[in-house]
Amino acid sequence: MILASKSPRRQRLLREAGFEFEVIVRPVEEQVVGHLTPREVALRIAEDKARAYSDLSQNHLIITADTIVVLDEHILGKPSHAAEATRMLQQLSGRSHEVISAVCLYHQNHLHSFSERTEVCFRELEAEEIQHYITHYRPFDKAGAYGIQEWIGMVGISGIRGDYYNVMGLPLAGLYRELKSFPKGVVLQV
Amino acid sequence: MILASKSPRRQRLLREAGFEFEVIVRPVEEQVVGHLTPREVALRIAEDKARAYSDLSQNHLIITADTIVVLDEHILGKPSHAAEATRMLQQLSGRSHEVISAVCLYHQNHLHSFSERTEVCFRELEAEEIQHYITHYRPFDKAGAYGIQEWIGMVGISGIRGDYYNVMGLPLAGLYRELKSFPKGVVLQV
Repeated sequence: MILASKSPRRQRLLREAGFEFEVIVRPVEEQVVGHLTPREVALRIAEDKARAYSDLSQNHLIITADTIVVLDEHILGKPSHAAEATRMLQQLSGRSHEVISAVCLYHQNHLHSFSERTEVCFRELEAEEIQHYITHYRPFDKAGAYGIQEWIGMVGISGIRGDYYNVMGLPLAGLYRELKSFPKGVVLQV
Repeated sequence: MILASKSPRRQRLLREAGFEFEVIVRPVEEQVVGHLTPREVALRIAEDKARAYSDLSQNHLIITADTIVVLDEHILGKPSHAAEATRMLQQLSGRSHEVISAVCLYHQNHLHSFSERTEVCFRELEAEEIQHYITHYRPFDKAGAYGIQEWIGMVGISGIRGDYYNVMGLPLAGLYRELKSFPKGVVLQV
């Protein structure tokens, strides 16, 4: 089993969920064209990532994933600087948004993908709280400019609806369910 | 600020939420009499724990907490052996239950307490999954016989509704909100 993701969070989650796997990361361009819903965008990106490993998929099960943050049908990407991160957190403050993670499983020419959706609600964030978080945590590698497992998520998120680990980047319960259907030998079970 | 809890999870959460505090633990008997709702039971226990620190409350802010797991209005305690843990997880399998954490803040003769409720939904758990979890994780210190941050929570919980950290034992967003109203000096802020 190969996790094709450079995200240390995904690696840690999959390990803690009891799976044995290797990590192999290849550069993949995330490019989506056409009119797609946010969910379709996440699925498309996860599938495109998987296709970069077609040579390995004969003998391995490849897992790729993509996580997006969606506010009013618009996707919030990774902020490229502090001002953009501030703007994103101001937008998320005091309301709910969606986090969608798509996962693609690729084995022997078969792509199988699924997605999971979690609703996340931030309380009203104060300007100093946003500033404190961005300065100390530098969330420039995170879609929507926050990590639920970091300070701002711990003290600023009043509640979620759905899978917590999905918000961290990997819908573990869903992934486990899908992986159970693969034959032993392909998936080294817990 | 003093966290009066021997739970390593609570200590870790409060630290990661950015607070500075000491841990002092005194033995307190958890005994509740009379007809109380589950929420009232949790609040009563958190308050009883706090009262054991009245001598320290003059100069310190004492934080105590109690977390209960509630299924059909019945409280599931900590399992005392594997058979009881198995029975609890069988009961929780394939349905929703409630986790209620009560927190008591005690300072200068004033007790202030609040509680938070999170709904947790387990998918149908297989007998081998329950067995695997109990054997490897020994959840005898955990109300309801599971930790949401452990294997069974990662792969077996399909979703929650409310605060994730509340299920781990400390409603961080609520606690942060309450602590903000205390004067600086009492609470060493982040």
